[in-house]
Amino acid sequence: MTDSNTAVTFLPDGNVCTPKGFRASGIHCGLRRNKTKKDLALIVSDVPAAAAAVYTLNAVKGAPIAVTKANIADGRAQAMLCNSGNANTCAPNGEAIARKMCMLLAEASGLSADDVIIASTGVIGQPLPIEPIATGMKPLVDALSYEGGEDCAAAIMTTDLVAKHCAVTVDIGGKTVTVGGIAKGSGMIHPNMATMLVFITTDAAISSEMLQKAVSTDVQNTFNMISVDGDTSTNDMLSVMANGLAGNAEITAAGADFDAFAAALHTVTSHLSRAIARDGEGATKLLTCTVTGATDDATARVLARSVISSSLVKTAMFGSDANWGRVLCALGYSGAPFNPEAADVSFASSAGIVDVCSAGRALDFSEELAKKVLLEKEVSIIVTLHDGDADATAWGCDLSYEYVRINGDYRS
Amino acid sequence: MTDSNTAVTFLPDGNVCTPKGFRASGIHCGLRRNKTKKDLALIVSDVPAAAAAVYTLNAVKGAPIAVTKANIADGRAQAMLCNSGNANTCAPNGEAIARKMCMLLAEASGLSADDVIIASTGVIGQPLPIEPIATGMKPLVDALSYEGGEDCAAAIMTTDLVAKHCAVTVDIGGKTVTVGGIAKGSGMIHPNMATMLVFITTDAAISSEMLQKAVSTDVQNTFNMISVDGDTSTNDMLSVMANGLAGNAEITAAGADFDAFAAALHTVTSHLSRAIARDGEGATKLLTCTVTGATDDATARVLARSVISSSLVKTAMFGSDANWGRVLCALGYSGAPFNPEAADVSFASSAGIVDVCSAGRALDFSEELAKKVLLEKEVSIIVTLHDGDADATAWGCDLSYEYVRINGDYRS
Repeated sequence: MTDSNTAVTFLPDGNVCTPKGFRASGIHCGLRRNKTKKDLALIVSDVPAAAAAVYTLNAVKGAPIAVTKANIADGRAQAMLCNSGNANTCAPNGEAIARKMCMLLAEASGLSADDVIIASTGVIGQPLPIEPIATGMKPLVDALSYEGGEDCAAAIMTTDLVAKHCAVTVDIGGKTVTVGGIAKGSGMIHPNMATMLVFITTDAAISSEMLQKAVSTDVQNTFNMISVDGDTSTNDMLSVMANGLAGNAEITAAGADFDAFAAALHTVTSHLSRAIARDGEGATKLLTCTVTGATDDATARVLARSVISSSLVKTAMFGSDANWGRVLCALGYSGAPFNPEAADVSFASSAGIVDVCSAGRALDFSEELAKKVLLEKEVSIIVTLHDGDADATAWGCDLSYEYVRINGDYRS
Repeated sequence: MTDSNTAVTFLPDGNVCTPKGFRASGIHCGLRRNKTKKDLALIVSDVPAAAAAVYTLNAVKGAPIAVTKANIADGRAQAMLCNSGNANTCAPNGEAIARKMCMLLAEASGLSADDVIIASTGVIGQPLPIEPIATGMKPLVDALSYEGGEDCAAAIMTTDLVAKHCAVTVDIGGKTVTVGGIAKGSGMIHPNMATMLVFITTDAAISSEMLQKAVSTDVQNTFNMISVDGDTSTNDMLSVMANGLAGNAEITAAGADFDAFAAALHTVTSHLSRAIARDGEGATKLLTCTVTGATDDATARVLARSVISSSLVKTAMFGSDANWGRVLCALGYSGAPFNPEAADVSFASSAGIVDVCSAGRALDFSEELAKKVLLEKEVSIIVTLHDGDADATAWGCDLSYEYVRINGDYRS
């Protein structure tokens, strides 16, 4: 699959080990009771790398986030370490435990403790026991391999049903640059909330400043445009390491090379975003809302996100019900400016397209066709405004009985 | 039941006919297929009344809202007319049809068409047929009675399981002033969204300006503090008529009389707010979130509403699961400022109280007690901050399988 504009080649089986010089591993160390479930993940670059990250906007932040921020303040990292099963959030001595994890990795690997990007996901409010991590660190480091990306992707999963990973290649100044990524979903962990975590690796040579600029810009149109249930976790983080082994001239400013890198990054992040939305807890279908013709980008984003986040839209989509009034209603309460009297709404899928609303008024559409369109596993809600030139796309999933079951069960 | 501070006497069986000089009626005119379901409601004051209203903030507004706004621009009304079964929203000729309804009432009753507060609730996007309303208007007017409040409350119901009404009395300057109200809930109607409608009557003598001030202030702490599923409808409206028949000196400025009236109004509106939350679609329990110790009122309100609106909190409460981390998470992503390191969380009900979080950290609480507390039909989530003196309360309901069933079913 190749994007003709930017010559980005998509590798659906790729992962964080696809770029040159990255080894990874994932093991069961004992944080989770289920011994078949990996719970400790590691990614190491062969050489020090430029590093950047974006973090949750939740005012309640997991302890690992503070440690990662401090560790990459110098724009540099060489490893990503993540446990599942415990979020190390709202729990005693969180930052000390996160720093201890970095030190354990440093002792076992010879890396510097302050070159570690650290993350945790799982239950919050309970102390993270360090013993299983201490015991597991040497086996984790010993398991590092250039083929370890899949084990690593499995070890960060919580209620995710499928591992999420991909990679792309792009030509930058005659060199083949590779970007790879893994992600875990925003499904909510038993018994508390979980987290969206994204780890990206690349062999591009790029300054940490431009790397930060690339990811900060990109998330506006990718990970900030997905919603499973509207709850922003305490531990969400996207981090990236760029080790320069592709041999391209270092990207230190805007220009064609930066644009090519950004396009490659976007292909990875938009794939992982959709994968997270599709694998939302209890989801039976992937929903995409595209808003076109808005006054500006920010308005288009707010409108698309409002539709994709509406419980009424999500339950209607679960029921394959062409309730376009709920779409208009969600646009209306978003707080973003638009002209409802000029709004058109259509539903589309591989089964066809059905126009349901024109200029804010009902169309006399075929309910039979609408049902066929909405029964598909991927459904697009297309909102066409006539207010301007801006557009945005948001991804989400439907709201099912299974979501209620997963999140309403007694803890046990 | 008497509130000792303000001497407000609560009348749980009261309604819009409890204040002096209000007649009401409710009939089946044929807008709804089910002939046992009333679908046309009327309230008439014996004399012209001061009028005020607050409306949905949704940018997509039902046609009746524009007509009501115009009709009460002079601060005066004498009737409230409401149909259920069709929202007259995003449908052809909406405003003309709403005005026609007012004219039909004027012809049948001798009132002025521009003294009518008009409302509609039901499916959106479909033309509202005027014929059943034209045919039903004379029977509706003929049925007006000082005992008609219950029929009227029934006629505005959609997916509501119970009629919602109450009244209070209060002494103002030696005169007994009565305030009565009816409401329909924010349950979502088949096949589109429905509406929160509140009709309040009072025999107080009060200027329309002070009446507007009273309701505009009051909704901040009542109807704006409830959430069933976060979707703000296109047709939400609270309206009030004050006909002066209690004989108190007209309230035209702030002072003790205004405060007494505001207290009476608040008793009615807070009761109806809780009744709407309790009767949310699929709800199995009423949730109250009280935030104390916030920096200011607006902050306290945003925090309380964020907790009550969280799908994760709502599913946890459905499962009687003491997932306090979800409460902290919802506070955190609300965008309102607070110190998470100082936040305490408790759950309370008639079965007891259990402290689950202190200063942002887990407490070692009894899961057995927590389950007993959360299995009750009314559960309070108590958040104690240490940032200031402001507090707020929000009401909501849990998120159940039944909510998904009601809103996900095919239209039929």
